[in-house]
Amino acid sequence: MREIMVVGVGAGDPEHVTVQAVNAINRVDVFFMLDKGEVKQELIDLRHEILTRYATSRPYRVVRGQDPDRDRTSAAYAEAVDDWRRRRADVCLRMIDSLGPDETGAFLVWGDPVLYDSTLAILDDLLARGAEFDVQVIPGISSVSTLAARHRVPLNQVGRPVQITTGRRLAAEWPAGVDDVVVMLDAQTAFTQHTDHEADIYWGAYLGTPDEILIAGPLAEVADRIVAARAEARARKGWIMDTYLLRRNP
Amino acid sequence: MREIMVVGVGAGDPEHVTVQAVNAINRVDVFFMLDKGEVKQELIDLRHEILTRYATSRPYRVVRGQDPDRDRTSAAYAEAVDDWRRRRADVCLRMIDSLGPDETGAFLVWGDPVLYDSTLAILDDLLARGAEFDVQVIPGISSVSTLAARHRVPLNQVGRPVQITTGRRLAAEWPAGVDDVVVMLDAQTAFTQHTDHEADIYWGAYLGTPDEILIAGPLAEVADRIVAARAEARARKGWIMDTYLLRRNP
Repeated sequence: MREIMVVGVGAGDPEHVTVQAVNAINRVDVFFMLDKGEVKQELIDLRHEILTRYATSRPYRVVRGQDPDRDRTSAAYAEAVDDWRRRRADVCLRMIDSLGPDETGAFLVWGDPVLYDSTLAILDDLLARGAEFDVQVIPGISSVSTLAARHRVPLNQVGRPVQITTGRRLAAEWPAGVDDVVVMLDAQTAFTQHTDHEADIYWGAYLGTPDEILIAGPLAEVADRIVAARAEARARKGWIMDTYLLRRNP
Repeated sequence: MREIMVVGVGAGDPEHVTVQAVNAINRVDVFFMLDKGEVKQELIDLRHEILTRYATSRPYRVVRGQDPDRDRTSAAYAEAVDDWRRRRADVCLRMIDSLGPDETGAFLVWGDPVLYDSTLAILDDLLARGAEFDVQVIPGISSVSTLAARHRVPLNQVGRPVQITTGRRLAAEWPAGVDDVVVMLDAQTAFTQHTDHEADIYWGAYLGTPDEILIAGPLAEVADRIVAARAEARARKGWIMDTYLLRRNP
């Protein structure tokens, strides 16, 4: 049976890779690479650095696919994601079909494959369509863990919950029943809509990379600084990946 | 300046350790070990296995402290934890005071130091009391990540939030506004109070260790099986660490 490994490789620092991931990488015959266009070239370079550094015990092949464009402006968010996933799954199936019988393929996933990543759902789609392969998931260090570690703060207050959500949802409202909120995929700086809360923000961009930026403080005081730093970095680099923790006193 | 590293070493599998953690471990002069009594002897053994396997580049010392007892039955949960933390901080301060100037000490933390772990709060307490040291946090693979990876499911549904909370809170109510709930620190099998929800449960105990147990399925169908497996394992081993994801259709 062909095996597909979904390997979390951490938030951007090649040293986030676990020993389990290194061992997994050294069993792989084919690495599947989805190219996302030149703005993410640095991420592709980092992936190659990971292979150069860790995939040292045997020869391997690299099979590339072109990540389809995604409509990020659509109001029908779930439908737009569904459509993009379907086209992405087609690309992935073509890559997987390059595996010989009993060979092992791998997707290297940024962060943790179980948190806001679509690779597992794509593989489930392909299995539901009748494709045959085993799946193994290697957990990775998420950008969320990295954010909190770099700011040296826990994600949760003692005995209290933490919610991980999207910028789109935070823009609609502060989530009910929680004082600690981690926000991912926020293209609209939704935190600026909550400066009336007495909350602290712990923000980070390009976490784990040499370009990492960290800003923390009372939300009302530092929100403008984050917006400016974010816009400047995005203009300079052509892309941004950021995440943040909002913490309110219970 | 003395440096204290808080190093996440993963959920139980020594291979969860990251390259960053291995490199950090090899800069450590003194490892601080809090002994928790014989029921957790296996965790202490695992910590020693991690040192034997990875702390290979230089000599190091191990300083032990006795973890104070904690009142887990108190209704005044936050107060009981506060008191326990204060006594635990005293123990930690005595251990840290064994560091020479410019030496580096480390706490090896199970899972991820930023998720439901008290080490960072203890160090903040000690800094507030006037102790002087730098703190560095190395993120680790959490039991939450491991749970989802072993079940090969994402923690979140597409574009939707996930809340991480405690058994105590889930026992009171299903959290508002979320369909995906991860539960930690649940000594009372709080999921049994929600079998009227059309939800799936993904449960795991001793994650990442040779004793790992995984059960998944519709909550109403598998709840009894989980309760029985949990009781049997706990009786057999003398302790249990488990966590689970509850997933409802939106």
